[in-house]
Amino acid sequence: MSSIRPEAAGELEETAASLRADVEDSKPPYLRKRWKKELENVLKGKFFVAPAFEIYGGVAGLFDLGPPGCAMKAQLEAYWRRHFILHEGMLELGGTCLTPERVLEASGHVERFSDLMVKDETNGRCFRADKLLEEALEARLKESTDEEEKKSLRRVAIQADAMTAQEIHDQITHLDIRAPSSGAALSFPVPFNLMFKTSIGPQGNAVGYLRPETAQGIFVNFRRLLEYNNGKIPFAVAQIGLGFRNEIAPRQGLLRVREFQMAEIEHFVDPIDKFHPRFTEVKDLCLPLSPRETQMEEGCECGARLVARRSRQEKGGLRWCVIDNETLAYFLARTFLFLTGAGIRPEGLRFRQHLEREMAHYATDCWDAEIETSFGWVECVGHADRSAYDLSAHTRASNTELVAHRRLEKPRIVDFVKVSVDKKKIGPAFKQEAEKVLKGLEDMSDNDKLDAEKTLASTGLFNLKLSTGETYAIKREFVSFESAERKVTEESFVPSVIEPSFGLGRILYAIWEHTFNIDSFRARADGKRTDSDENERRYFSFPPHLAPFKVAIVLISHQEEFRHFVTEVHSALSALGLSTLVDSSSAYIGRRYARFDAIGVPFAVTIDLETKRDLRVTLRERDSSEQVRLPMADVPSVVARLCSRSLSWEAVLKKYPKFRTRQPVGRRIREALGLVLDHRSSVCAMTAAVAFMAVVTLRLARRL
Amino acid sequence: MSSIRPEAAGELEETAASLRADVEDSKPPYLRKRWKKELENVLKGKFFVAPAFEIYGGVAGLFDLGPPGCAMKAQLEAYWRRHFILHEGMLELGGTCLTPERVLEASGHVERFSDLMVKDETNGRCFRADKLLEEALEARLKESTDEEEKKSLRRVAIQADAMTAQEIHDQITHLDIRAPSSGAALSFPVPFNLMFKTSIGPQGNAVGYLRPETAQGIFVNFRRLLEYNNGKIPFAVAQIGLGFRNEIAPRQGLLRVREFQMAEIEHFVDPIDKFHPRFTEVKDLCLPLSPRETQMEEGCECGARLVARRSRQEKGGLRWCVIDNETLAYFLARTFLFLTGAGIRPEGLRFRQHLEREMAHYATDCWDAEIETSFGWVECVGHADRSAYDLSAHTRASNTELVAHRRLEKPRIVDFVKVSVDKKKIGPAFKQEAEKVLKGLEDMSDNDKLDAEKTLASTGLFNLKLSTGETYAIKREFVSFESAERKVTEESFVPSVIEPSFGLGRILYAIWEHTFNIDSFRARADGKRTDSDENERRYFSFPPHLAPFKVAIVLISHQEEFRHFVTEVHSALSALGLSTLVDSSSAYIGRRYARFDAIGVPFAVTIDLETKRDLRVTLRERDSSEQVRLPMADVPSVVARLCSRSLSWEAVLKKYPKFRTRQPVGRRIREALGLVLDHRSSVCAMTAAVAFMAVVTLRLARRL
Repeated sequence: MSSIRPEAAGELEETAASLRADVEDSKPPYLRKRWKKELENVLKGKFFVAPAFEIYGGVAGLFDLGPPGCAMKAQLEAYWRRHFILHEGMLELGGTCLTPERVLEASGHVERFSDLMVKDETNGRCFRADKLLEEALEARLKESTDEEEKKSLRRVAIQADAMTAQEIHDQITHLDIRAPSSGAALSFPVPFNLMFKTSIGPQGNAVGYLRPETAQGIFVNFRRLLEYNNGKIPFAVAQIGLGFRNEIAPRQGLLRVREFQMAEIEHFVDPIDKFHPRFTEVKDLCLPLSPRETQMEEGCECGARLVARRSRQEKGGLRWCVIDNETLAYFLARTFLFLTGAGIRPEGLRFRQHLEREMAHYATDCWDAEIETSFGWVECVGHADRSAYDLSAHTRASNTELVAHRRLEKPRIVDFVKVSVDKKKIGPAFKQEAEKVLKGLEDMSDNDKLDAEKTLASTGLFNLKLSTGETYAIKREFVSFESAERKVTEESFVPSVIEPSFGLGRILYAIWEHTFNIDSFRARADGKRTDSDENERRYFSFPPHLAPFKVAIVLISHQEEFRHFVTEVHSALSALGLSTLVDSSSAYIGRRYARFDAIGVPFAVTIDLETKRDLRVTLRERDSSEQVRLPMADVPSVVARLCSRSLSWEAVLKKYPKFRTRQPVGRRIREALGLVLDHRSSVCAMTAAVAFMAVVTLRLARRL
Repeated sequence: MSSIRPEAAGELEETAASLRADVEDSKPPYLRKRWKKELENVLKGKFFVAPAFEIYGGVAGLFDLGPPGCAMKAQLEAYWRRHFILHEGMLELGGTCLTPERVLEASGHVERFSDLMVKDETNGRCFRADKLLEEALEARLKESTDEEEKKSLRRVAIQADAMTAQEIHDQITHLDIRAPSSGAALSFPVPFNLMFKTSIGPQGNAVGYLRPETAQGIFVNFRRLLEYNNGKIPFAVAQIGLGFRNEIAPRQGLLRVREFQMAEIEHFVDPIDKFHPRFTEVKDLCLPLSPRETQMEEGCECGARLVARRSRQEKGGLRWCVIDNETLAYFLARTFLFLTGAGIRPEGLRFRQHLEREMAHYATDCWDAEIETSFGWVECVGHADRSAYDLSAHTRASNTELVAHRRLEKPRIVDFVKVSVDKKKIGPAFKQEAEKVLKGLEDMSDNDKLDAEKTLASTGLFNLKLSTGETYAIKREFVSFESAERKVTEESFVPSVIEPSFGLGRILYAIWEHTFNIDSFRARADGKRTDSDENERRYFSFPPHLAPFKVAIVLISHQEEFRHFVTEVHSALSALGLSTLVDSSSAYIGRRYARFDAIGVPFAVTIDLETKRDLRVTLRERDSSEQVRLPMADVPSVVARLCSRSLSWEAVLKKYPKFRTRQPVGRRIREALGLVLDHRSSVCAMTAAVAFMAVVTLRLARRL
């Protein structure tokens, strides 16, 4: 071991600290540790969200949305409705959460909707087996230095959530994984059904569950929905509503909860041509795709991206080179537009194809829209081609045909056995049971009919046996059967269904991470980072159409004569459905704007002393902090158009004169400096020097 | 018995039929039997609503909303949000449905949220005791001819839902009520808890319920909400979300269901002055009130109405003559405006005050907004002053103070015992436990402190005993206590809460009943009613802002060159959030309008052959069937303003030229005649004659 001089050690430490900071700065903001802590403070402090039933110690996996969170959820739902339902004229359905057992038996949820659970036998605590395995693997990955071992560990990790109980058990034994905190041995994994069970009605014998997804409510209504759509296919049905999953051990805050708002689309198509009528609108879009082949090679965490172009054309409809069919590709594109339009940064978004064994046995192709957050890449939207599985399952279980019809290109001639009955004779012979007999004769198979005809021809009598077991003696004079031909112009089929399924709560959280910003105005004189600087601006750059509150009305003077301006602006904005916050506090104006920035209010209308004279107010935009001065009467329509994205802030800047606040010189210099400092992430070492010089120069300048 | 001539008997029968029809016609439309049947057909046929899980035989009390119903529910919620939350800047909260047992134990729901149930022991069927009693009483009421007996029966009926098990049992015995269908004897009534029970988490020991109301989610968040509101009171919190009640025997279709959308407001006030800052805005409104005194006299069914004016002023705030306080009165008025603005007919709306024993023990005053429907008067909105009950209950159970603070008019001087400690001595003496000792000393009662001082003075030592049982020897040098005075400028109090609670599903159904119309165009030549007339128009006169779809786009020509007009209009309307339906069928134009009328689409834009030439289209209003012709470019803003109620149809008529369809003469005559016939309800006998003459005259006119 060589010893080093103490001074050198100090230098090295400084360099290391600086390098660590540079690494931190080069990450997207939402991946920086400090950002996350600050975001958590804001989300809790401004009551975007809080643990539910906190005063009773809380319940894991349940959260309440406070005023800004709740308003934003409503905006997100409205946006989803516009983007998907209105845009395409989808049918919207509102089903119930309570679901009788039979429905979920048919769909397979009662048998299979479970996670594998391991138990710490010493204290009864339960863990989700795959998550425990994944965490253990991650820890090993960090320790390991052998590239081959790392590769193999990664492969296991990717497949963890699709393993059988035996496979997981083997891995647990192999890696010697033990219960967290107690260190005790773990039980063999057992499936735990994730549905909340209850009892419907007073008798106590009708088992019900809270729906784990909204989709089943659409499938069981298929007949009515198709009829509503005049029997035409393809068509899409959407549903926004709650889903419930009794997670074994919910963690990761808002990302794994027990009650969550979903938005699902079931787009029914003819399986022989899964075209989408509006595909051409999105065909030139580039999407960040991560097909299954690349995942096994590079590991999921590497986020292999393939920016590809949907172009290859095949006979009988467009077909994309990676994605199974046109409708699935169409929805990936629409989801991309939805998420980026909601404030998700494109570089933190990818579409990951499911691995073969990750998919349900009936699925044709699945792609998850994953968003990068401080918790890693998180599945926020699933896109699955569920084929005809669900409709077939419900057809079998309910004995109700759930099919659509397609016209044949040319009519087909089919053989059948024609039944000719003499109702005048059957009626008196069977009286009340005549109907049953007639139906029984019709329902016979073609072979049975021809056999019966032979029997009738030879003996003049045959025995009709119904499925109920009843038997009727049928005479020659009642009926005759004969082979015939029929022209068929259409045939029935079970539609395939393509399902984009959105977890709105997860998306909401991801938006918070992706839009949270901290801008610093001032650096310390020595050029070092100033983590606890008071002159930082924390704000959410929510797209205006999603912001929980659209406008802050700020009053400068507290004289009574100004109050009616507030009422006027507030009423006009409310009438247009724009939510406003009124601030008539006496705080320093900058502090008041900061308060609204912190909850992402995109616009502020300030009524100042001049307003009385010229009936003009200032309008401030959040992200740029720029202000214009405009007639008070223009405010409602300008803000409404800004919020509905039919007007840009740039256009507003062109139309109205810019308003300059009389800020102290010191602040303006600080801001200019902040701007300089903001660019250092890329060219950090040099910028540090420049910043230092800038500080010195500006200080000198100030003294002159 | 006197015999009558056959001809006379025929005449009498006709007169009776005519009288019955007149009685029917004099009722509000929604009370007419035929209307109800037709409405049910439309609601089911157009898939506004359907029984849930129908293909599996359905589940009583669960319904699904189809596309028009679901869209309308979304509109109703948005309207509620605008009318209440935006209007007053209420805080909106989004809580969870899953609720842990402790919370609902504290609120009293686990113990008391139940209905009395009687059982048919022969087949296990369960009935709601009060409903069974009410039905039996109603049947007796119809039979009875004795006015005194009727009065007494009515009194019992009114109180049925507030009776104890013994009282109901006595009534059942007294009236000899038996189980429907089987006729068997009924069990003694037992309480059945209406909450759906489930288990949260994998261990199975955490009992949870589905919330029976959204209110508790607000109360348990009170501290955060008050903090969010900067500690200021009064303030209101609102929540829209699902509630669940495991009804014993759900009937009455959509009016008594097991899962329902609620919208609740908890308005927190200082109990010493329940003023509302915006009361003056509604003070001159006349409301149909039914105070408790009048109900016992005339019976609930009579719908005693008192149109009164809120005016009496009392010292210390406005006080209304019947309603307990200003805030409660304010919300009755706002609810009245909400409901009438949603299409509820004012004559079918009343506010019924709860009877003394109907109210919960803690409530100060309760008023139900009841809407008259074909099922009778139905409670759709409850308005209750719940006093400080809930916050106090949760304070006790959670050990968390849920209070607000008020400034005292003049500061108060209060005695207290001042504790002076010597931290320098306590620290080393108790080390890690010093903090605990210091808190223990502060937490002592004033009396204990003075006693301790005495002990210290005499012996130099006293034993501090903590609530945990630990004891510490405190020396004279550590602490001294002395009586002192303190100026107090504010005091804490438990706010009272006033709760308007809306059943949105019930309101939706009531809107359907109140807005459904049948207009007849033609009468039969003999002047008799024509119940199955094809020339009838069935439509919902939904207020445009609530209509499920705002605009129908109707295309006359099917040539390709007209299609882009549809795309253009559709995109422009969608961008403004207006839902549209496109009709490019080849049906007769009248039939196409009729289809949209049947689902209440308020406006239709028709692109006709002229459009290509003049870029103008016709805009049709649903209720009047009137049409104007206007530039296509004007359509989006005109329709948007019509839907947001900032423009009236009358104003549109003034601005744009009226468009006349070239209807066949016969149809116009029929319409004119329909108008005549529509007025007959009031002056029926005469009108019948006039109608007959009119038919004859018109027939003659046509022949000329």
